Amino acid sequence: MSKRSARSRRAGLKAGLPPGTPVYTGQAPERDPVISALEIRPDDLVEHAHLSPARCREFVRPGALTWIIVDGLHRPEKIQQLGECFGLHPLVIEDILNVAQRPKVEDYGEYLFLVARKLTLDEASGRVVSEQVSLVLGHDYVISFHETHPVLLDGLRERFRAAQAQVRTKGSDYLAYRVLDTIVDNYFLIADQLSDSVQQLEDEILNHPAREAMAALLGVRTSLIELRRAVWPLREVVGWLEKGGSDLIDAAERPYFRDLYDHAVQIMDVVENQRDLVASVHDLYLNSVSLRLNEVMKVLTVIATIFMPLTFIVGVYGMNFEHMPELGWKYGYAVVWGVILMIAALMLVWFRRKRWI
Amino acid sequence: MSKRSARSRRAGLKAGLPPGTPVYTGQAPERDPVISALEIRPDDLVEHAHLSPARCREFVRPGALTWIIVDGLHRPEKIQQLGECFGLHPLVIEDILNVAQRPKVEDYGEYLFLVARKLTLDEASGRVVSEQVSLVLGHDYVISFHETHPVLLDGLRERFRAAQAQVRTKGSDYLAYRVLDTIVDNYFLIADQLSDSVQQLEDEILNHPAREAMAALLGVRTSLIELRRAVWPLREVVGWLEKGGSDLIDAAERPYFRDLYDHAVQIMDVVENQRDLVASVHDLYLNSVSLRLNEVMKVLTVIATIFMPLTFIVGVYGMNFEHMPELGWKYGYAVVWGVILMIAALMLVWFRRKRWI
Amino acid sequence: MSKRSARSRRAGLKAGLPPGTPVYTGQAPERDPVISALEIRPDDLVEHAHLSPARCREFVRPGALTWIIVDGLHRPEKIQQLGECFGLHPLVIEDILNVAQRPKVEDYGEYLFLVARKLTLDEASGRVVSEQVSLVLGHDYVISFHETHPVLLDGLRERFRAAQAQVRTKGSDYLAYRVLDTIVDNYFLIADQLSDSVQQLEDEILNHPAREAMAALLGVRTSLIELRRAVWPLREVVGWLEKGGSDLIDAAERPYFRDLYDHAVQIMDVVENQRDLVASVHDLYLNSVSLRLNEVMKVLTVIATIFMPLTFIVGVYGMNFEHMPELGWKYGYAVVWGVILMIAALMLVWFRRKRWI
Amino acid sequence: MSKRSARSRRAGLKAGLPPGTPVYTGQAPERDPVISALEIRPDDLVEHAHLSPARCREFVRPGALTWIIVDGLHRPEKIQQLGECFGLHPLVIEDILNVAQRPKVEDYGEYLFLVARKLTLDEASGRVVSEQVSLVLGHDYVISFHETHPVLLDGLRERFRAAQAQVRTKGSDYLAYRVLDTIVDNYFLIADQLSDSVQQLEDEILNHPAREAMAALLGVRTSLIELRRAVWPLREVVGWLEKGGSDLIDAAERPYFRDLYDHAVQIMDVVENQRDLVASVHDLYLNSVSLRLNEVMKVLTVIATIFMPLTFIVGVYGMNFEHMPELGWKYGYAVVWGVILMIAALMLVWFRRKRWI
Amino acid sequence: MSKRSARSRRAGLKAGLPPGTPVYTGQAPERDPVISALEIRPDDLVEHAHLSPARCREFVRPGALTWIIVDGLHRPEKIQQLGECFGLHPLVIEDILNVAQRPKVEDYGEYLFLVARKLTLDEASGRVVSEQVSLVLGHDYVISFHETHPVLLDGLRERFRAAQAQVRTKGSDYLAYRVLDTIVDNYFLIADQLSDSVQQLEDEILNHPAREAMAALLGVRTSLIELRRAVWPLREVVGWLEKGGSDLIDAAERPYFRDLYDHAVQIMDVVENQRDLVASVHDLYLNSVSLRLNEVMKVLTVIATIFMPLTFIVGVYGMNFEHMPELGWKYGYAVVWGVILMIAALMLVWFRRKRWI
Repeated sequence: MSKRSARSRRAGLKAGLPPGTPVYTGQAPERDPVISALEIRPDDLVEHAHLSPARCREFVRPGALTWIIVDGLHRPEKIQQLGECFGLHPLVIEDILNVAQRPKVEDYGEYLFLVARKLTLDEASGRVVSEQVSLVLGHDYVISFHETHPVLLDGLRERFRAAQAQVRTKGSDYLAYRVLDTIVDNYFLIADQLSDSVQQLEDEILNHPAREAMAALLGVRTSLIELRRAVWPLREVVGWLEKGGSDLIDAAERPYFRDLYDHAVQIMDVVENQRDLVASVHDLYLNSVSLRLNEVMKVLTVIATIFMPLTFIVGVYGMNFEHMPELGWKYGYAVVWGVILMIAALMLVWFRRKRWI
Repeated sequence: MSKRSARSRRAGLKAGLPPGTPVYTGQAPERDPVISALEIRPDDLVEHAHLSPARCREFVRPGALTWIIVDGLHRPEKIQQLGECFGLHPLVIEDILNVAQRPKVEDYGEYLFLVARKLTLDEASGRVVSEQVSLVLGHDYVISFHETHPVLLDGLRERFRAAQAQVRTKGSDYLAYRVLDTIVDNYFLIADQLSDSVQQLEDEILNHPAREAMAALLGVRTSLIELRRAVWPLREVVGWLEKGGSDLIDAAERPYFRDLYDHAVQIMDVVENQRDLVASVHDLYLNSVSLRLNEVMKVLTVIATIFMPLTFIVGVYGMNFEHMPELGWKYGYAVVWGVILMIAALMLVWFRRKRWI
Repeated sequence: MSKRSARSRRAGLKAGLPPGTPVYTGQAPERDPVISALEIRPDDLVEHAHLSPARCREFVRPGALTWIIVDGLHRPEKIQQLGECFGLHPLVIEDILNVAQRPKVEDYGEYLFLVARKLTLDEASGRVVSEQVSLVLGHDYVISFHETHPVLLDGLRERFRAAQAQVRTKGSDYLAYRVLDTIVDNYFLIADQLSDSVQQLEDEILNHPAREAMAALLGVRTSLIELRRAVWPLREVVGWLEKGGSDLIDAAERPYFRDLYDHAVQIMDVVENQRDLVASVHDLYLNSVSLRLNEVMKVLTVIATIFMPLTFIVGVYGMNFEHMPELGWKYGYAVVWGVILMIAALMLVWFRRKRWI
Repeated sequence: MSKRSARSRRAGLKAGLPPGTPVYTGQAPERDPVISALEIRPDDLVEHAHLSPARCREFVRPGALTWIIVDGLHRPEKIQQLGECFGLHPLVIEDILNVAQRPKVEDYGEYLFLVARKLTLDEASGRVVSEQVSLVLGHDYVISFHETHPVLLDGLRERFRAAQAQVRTKGSDYLAYRVLDTIVDNYFLIADQLSDSVQQLEDEILNHPAREAMAALLGVRTSLIELRRAVWPLREVVGWLEKGGSDLIDAAERPYFRDLYDHAVQIMDVVENQRDLVASVHDLYLNSVSLRLNEVMKVLTVIATIFMPLTFIVGVYGMNFEHMPELGWKYGYAVVWGVILMIAALMLVWFRRKRWI
Repeated sequence: MSKRSARSRRAGLKAGLPPGTPVYTGQAPERDPVISALEIRPDDLVEHAHLSPARCREFVRPGALTWIIVDGLHRPEKIQQLGECFGLHPLVIEDILNVAQRPKVEDYGEYLFLVARKLTLDEASGRVVSEQVSLVLGHDYVISFHETHPVLLDGLRERFRAAQAQVRTKGSDYLAYRVLDTIVDNYFLIADQLSDSVQQLEDEILNHPAREAMAALLGVRTSLIELRRAVWPLREVVGWLEKGGSDLIDAAERPYFRDLYDHAVQIMDVVENQRDLVASVHDLYLNSVSLRLNEVMKVLTVIATIFMPLTFIVGVYGMNFEHMPELGWKYGYAVVWGVILMIAALMLVWFRRKRWI
């Protein structure tokens, strides 16, 4: 929960600053941004690391596709410098740094500005941690901005290195698609982990309804909402791209975006399903608690109903009246025991018929 | 539940692979795909079985309608080979194999790609098992892909064998309609079985609210959601076909698709109804539990309220004070009994008036 | 509930039959269909009863309006014969016989096919029974199909007999309007009866919350859903007619359809209202149950809290220690009684202040 | 509740009558309708009372605006006569008399037919009573129909008498606006009264949750629904007028209708708010009840847990065994008291630590 | 709550007054409005304070942007005078004074009329207080009306004083954007404070579920609704401006409005999230209460189940029958103790296995 509230808090801290002021609002650990560039050409692939922001523009050359990866956002001035090289609107720079954006796409003519959210499941707390990935998609280049090291994309980079020439001839739209696809595929993993948690909690709750399970269930519910918040607007973004919203997306690549759209819809489906299941498990829990109460009360009632009359009877013959004829009878004691056993037996029969025991 | 989570898990396993890689993600038991072809001509009907994927294309001839049935998806390379013969887009192949698709239709100009979901009710667990049926609808042919042997369609095949010439003159659109119709008609059976379960659970719960009934109710609820997930998007698919979304659907066949659309809406109606009923039965259950608690508590209270004062009274005369005049009275004991009976009687009258007993 | 599930069951039984096969799926008692025709002319009105389906077409003559009433659907072949005379599409015949249709309108150019649902409240079970009324609206004729004898329409027929010439000059659109209007007006009666039931249950529940009332409430809720299912799609049908969806509806008659549309909206309003009220009464019931539990527990607690300490005190002086000085005191017994009464009084004051008694 | 169900009941009673039959379906006390006319001219204002319906038309003269007020609807024939003078459609007459209409506007070319609902809060029952106000808006005249004496409009009439020439030059559209505005302004008063009730109930429930408060809350909830039912469709009506749906509304007057629209939206807002609040108060109530139960049970448990062991101990020394060494000890009695006090003290400490006392 | 109901109450008080009558309906403490003007020119910035409303118009000169700030609305006649100078429609004046408006924009051609709501969190009650800010946006001027001193805007004014020439060359649209942006940024702060409260309440409730926490939760819920009511319609307003609804908004400034739109959506997101969380915490609370009841009842049942049989046993040997052989046995007393201890031990084992202790 701290994560989510933190996101808006940072946004809140900015209140009062003039719009367009670049301030990093995320929570990634402090470190210097590392900027690298990947020149993808049909015949080869050149990598440049630790670039200065001012020189990045040089690596964008006609006939090649350049992928600039900005890993870390702690030096707003660097991001700003990079943005100026590529002629980005001040509000784009601001949105890259203010990492509480919802997934969105903005068309600035020359380039598209895309925001998506990368999710990780924090093992310790069992909650989803959300991070912003911003993409600037120009004609010959893609710039991707990451709060932390983009582990997910390492695989993608590797594949470009190893890929056949064919893939390397694709344009920046295909590269953007691959980045988004990697992010969305990761949502499936998260969804699976959450779904496993729900199932585990269902079993736990059926066996022993405890407060901890409830808190864990609340955690899963919160994570599912976080997942939905990442996917739902992304679906619209991808839909817009697929429907030919921008000239930067080639018609030939649209089936890929349609596929991505389908994936987003599928995740939404899983999320809605899981939310429904969480609600069901919650109901199950409440039922368990109240059935258990019923059971406890039945035990109490059975015990009390049997022993209260008996205690009364023995109390009667514990009275000290001088004139109590039964006390002198020879078989008085035995008769009392008989009465006691009979009452107990009748009670037990009655409870059995009421299906209480 | 395992089914549903498995579906997204497989999708998750694919995370990282380049898009378009064909991997079968379903859970059908391992076996070799069997490909057969049905040449439907006005005057005769030829069947070919155990075809090699590369030769399938040969059976598609002008003037006839060929139905190619792919039974089993465990050899991705075979599906891929078949797809290449028919010029299918790599993403279509991928979607055929990645059997977690929602029902959808995609127009690739030359052919339509349709996905529907076949449902079976697993008798043992009482839960719905969902399987993907993919259709490729070309001008002279229909290819249907099935995870397990398409039992439902055997009847349909039989009917084509037996049919009058008239039916055999219809095009691929009519065949696709018949396949979808068979799948949708089966939904009615499932809906009926679920609806029977709900009614049975309602009776059970009214008689004896137990934890097992709750779990079963949860199962029905999950199955209804699964059914809705299969029908809801299919409705849109059929609606799109009916509204003339594609040239491959002849205007003359549209009333059939409208009929199919109506069926889908009808099932949605039944599903919504049953979900409402499940919620009602759930409420009924909770009410039963709390009424039962009330009843238990009333018994306890009646018993305690009657015997506690009486036990106190007999306790008083069990005290060993030397100076207790009542103990020496001749009718002391009888008077105490009188008091005891009177108190008990008054209590009973009071409870009767409160309608507790 | 049996009714609803039965409806889809019949539909289910049809699974596997080729589409367009006419099978009656309703539950009306078996009997022979009676076909009658009403020739409505400005100057006179001729009635023909017990017609053979093949001859019906003869009664449709230019310059007159013919109303053909088919009472009973148990001989599919008769309906089919009739349909063929009027050139109805096979799917129309199928829909007439498969009486689980939602209200709808279909435009076949030459004629309109309308489905509405007639509701009756079964006195015994308190549940709504739904029956399909199908209308075929041609230029000079209206054919209405009924599962059971159309009691509602007898009045309408009577009125046509008695009507002034003016009404008799109206077209088939006006007749169809009158039939639908009669069906919709009947919904108001049903809504009133349901609303009376809710009010009665509210009173009952406030006085004595019992399981039977809950079950009855569930019945009303189910009936309201059934009513909504009949009205909601009918509203759309009427709206389409009113907006001039078909040439068969004369612009001059549209205000009547608008009026009908308003009525449908009004019923929806009443239904939503009643559903809200049912939910409120359900809440009231739950509150009653839990307040009652509270009351029971207070009585138990008051009794136990007063008598447990007292029983302990008298128990103390029932001990048989040799050295218990109080036992020998002259006023020991009196003092104990004093303590007992004081404790009881203090307890009572305390409970009074806590407003428990 | 009686009101609402009565509304549809009357509509139900009409079932079977031919459409267009004028019958008054309201519940206003029986009395003769009073028809009066107000001729509004820039320079003077003439009032005519107790007009016969047939003569009304005479008071509509070019160059003046005539407001005809029909106070009481118990003589359908009078209303019908009036309607015929002004050439109103039979369905309009029917809708004026069938006072269960939802707010709506119908364009008959020559005139607009408007229905709004006037609400009054019945002090005794605390429930909202709804009454229909019908307006016919022609070019030079407005006819308003009221079930009971239009108290609200007396003020409006007064203001027209006193108004400057400028207001009197306005057309019938402005007059209709003023009538609707008066009705809508009154909704604010009702909303305030309901909102006060909610607040009062909130306080009551926090102090002492009783069944009466629940019933009152249910009443407020029902009233809020009634208010919403009056406002929601009216909003659409006004929106249609504002958007220039009819030529009878002058473009210059549209800002007034926009203002009215805003007011309707504002009331909807208040209603939604209050409904949410009612739900919150209901939750608060349920919580109070269950917290109270918890409290009661804690008292019972504390008492039972302390005194049951003690009673057992003193019971032990009340046994009459011949060989019970403790009984002969000198300090036996004192030791038992010591044990008793110690146990009681330990229990109290334990409960204190559990925060039960 | 008093705030909200007060808002509509004032509106209610106006009922009956002719529309367009200017009455201040807010609750700001009584004081004289202070009108000041800020002439913003590229090269300098002139401030005028304590202006008379009639002279304001003089400060609007071509080539400059004038910001007129009206601080306090208690003299309707002053506002009216000001409005007349600028040719504002009487309904605009009325809406400025009737401070219960929802955020909206109205296009009067010459000027836009905008309403937004400024929120403050009242520390004492923890509830959100809402205040109306009205903006009139002309070509060369912006007039902003505030109920209380516009603290938020002081910073903005300061920034204009200090700003570079560039900002000062912007038009009235940019100024209006800055005012709205300041208001929206403040919503983030409120959202954060509410979100902190929820988290705090969550912790509190997990530790000790008390009635106060419930009431506080209800307060947060109410505040979130208030926040939503301020943001939701504002989103539409900003969306309309961004989409070029008015010529007064320059295309070059639209990205700013899009940014504002995104912010509004983000806040909606946070609000929905928090509402969900409030619901979860509420559930948690209910669960805590019922688990606690379970725990209490288990203690009671364990105690009663152990001591009731024991008390019965010792009661048996407290009877005074003359013939009770056990009483004379030498080890009778010891045997009874043995039985007692055995029973107690068995019970404890049984409870342990049931996991009650």
